[in-house]
Amino acid sequence: MNIDDIRAARARLEGFAVRTPLLNAPLLDADAGRRIFVKAECLQKTGSFKYRGARSALSALDPETRARGVLAYSSGNHAQGVALAARELGAPAVIVMPSDAPALKIANTRAVGAEVVFYDRATEDRDAIGAALAEERGLTLIKPFDTPMVIAGQGTTGLEIAEDAKARGIDEADVLVCCGGGGLTSGIALALAAEAPGLRVRPVEPEGFDDVGRSLVSGTIQTNPSTTGSICDAIITPRPGDLTFPIMQAHCGPAYAVSDDDALRAMAVAFNRLKIVLEPGGAVALAAALFHATGDADVIVVASGGNVDAAMFQTALDRFA
Amino acid sequence: MNIDDIRAARARLEGFAVRTPLLNAPLLDADAGRRIFVKAECLQKTGSFKYRGARSALSALDPETRARGVLAYSSGNHAQGVALAARELGAPAVIVMPSDAPALKIANTRAVGAEVVFYDRATEDRDAIGAALAEERGLTLIKPFDTPMVIAGQGTTGLEIAEDAKARGIDEADVLVCCGGGGLTSGIALALAAEAPGLRVRPVEPEGFDDVGRSLVSGTIQTNPSTTGSICDAIITPRPGDLTFPIMQAHCGPAYAVSDDDALRAMAVAFNRLKIVLEPGGAVALAAALFHATGDADVIVVASGGNVDAAMFQTALDRFA
Repeated sequence: MNIDDIRAARARLEGFAVRTPLLNAPLLDADAGRRIFVKAECLQKTGSFKYRGARSALSALDPETRARGVLAYSSGNHAQGVALAARELGAPAVIVMPSDAPALKIANTRAVGAEVVFYDRATEDRDAIGAALAEERGLTLIKPFDTPMVIAGQGTTGLEIAEDAKARGIDEADVLVCCGGGGLTSGIALALAAEAPGLRVRPVEPEGFDDVGRSLVSGTIQTNPSTTGSICDAIITPRPGDLTFPIMQAHCGPAYAVSDDDALRAMAVAFNRLKIVLEPGGAVALAAALFHATGDADVIVVASGGNVDAAMFQTALDRFA
Repeated sequence: MNIDDIRAARARLEGFAVRTPLLNAPLLDADAGRRIFVKAECLQKTGSFKYRGARSALSALDPETRARGVLAYSSGNHAQGVALAARELGAPAVIVMPSDAPALKIANTRAVGAEVVFYDRATEDRDAIGAALAEERGLTLIKPFDTPMVIAGQGTTGLEIAEDAKARGIDEADVLVCCGGGGLTSGIALALAAEAPGLRVRPVEPEGFDDVGRSLVSGTIQTNPSTTGSICDAIITPRPGDLTFPIMQAHCGPAYAVSDDDALRAMAVAFNRLKIVLEPGGAVALAAALFHATGDADVIVVASGGNVDAAMFQTALDRFA
């Protein structure tokens, strides 16, 4: 797992992934008292960066394996990414979801051609169901973050940030990244360490779900006491990955933790100043830049996703726009 | 006024204007039964394409003239564009606004460094006030659309569309453009006529304010009976321009007219499927693609702006998301 894997992933994604813009707004800078540049991954296909890792992983499979199909556990952004990449590459995709997943997410996953298989959270074992399906049909499991080709795909975001920062004359900056299991964070960190060493990644997590931050401080993997109770559902994971954690340990600065209210407030700022739609988990990095970071140095923010329902978005606008 | 002016404008805008992405979403295509590509100019600096024309016009002035300052009449997107381009180029900017302009627009214009001069809509003559100021201070008036360097700047949008369409293998398509006075529409039409002749521009206007559509049908410039009464304020103008109309006549297909409700509905679609924020006047082209265009051919949409207040956006989500 190194920069060559990320460069190879970029070549495989060329012409498929959106090269998302690095946005900047004078009025946002005026609000913040510093220049803030926002990598708008909410504009990525399927509304989040997850498409990059999914397409990277699926395109790296040998054609015969891929033709048998892929499997993912998710009711969220990873499922969307895997489903679309599979359809584009002509591979069957099976998405295993809890039977109480929101109807819209089920419909959206089916709309891009994936088969949805349900399990009962209370009585059934998701992993056992997935393993049986994989065995029976020869499917390949695409893990959401702790696997090299997924990390490499997410790292392509970092290559683009390095190029766009250079074009704007930014040699030194913190790069704030919304962080769940660490696939995006570690991928970007690897890319920047090679291509723009003056840009330093800092993970951003929801308050109370700061497993990465605590792991970085303690030097060993720490877990979250719970995986429910935040509106930032897209980035709530039990613990950092076995692959992603050592990369973050080697390359990332101290983490930030932000409240749900700060995430909502940042969604309203993104609406007003940047004209982009962010989901709470995709807004925590912007929240950290606006409400936690100190000083007036340039900061780069990765806005990782925009898959939010209208009701939650309206809450952000009602309260903070 | 020809393609060379647009190419020259592009060179002047290089490194300043955002190269906005041409977005596509599988779920949007599924909704529409055709491929829809969206040029997201809401992501342009200041939240609309107007920055392009403003920066083009100001950067084309000779340095001495520019240093004396520029003047614009507007409470909206054109004022924002002129104010920012002026600040970037070190020129004073005076924006003449009605005294009842929304506080937020006044504040935003001042926040990018422009001086705001008010006039009373009922008792004062805006043009006389502007002319006196221009005379007294040696300011150059930057008209919103009917002037070559502004049209050339807006036309840079068309050069980017031509490139991105080619990269996606799109040789033939309608290009739907939100149309007020015709600066953006005519600029894109000139660019595409030269660079991608299989892409044909079709103006899109609000119902009841279809001066361009009627002018194209009759072959002579027609005016709107009123300039108030639509939520699509950004694209309500009395009539097409003397420069823009002949260009549209030479290069554009029949126009569409869409209702305010369709504009709101398209804003909700853009929220759900594309994760971008559109204002009503910036959403009419998407509305035409979704609710008026027939057939299953590829269509390209220019989403021209996103400067909408939270209340209007919430109305769109409440009713249609």
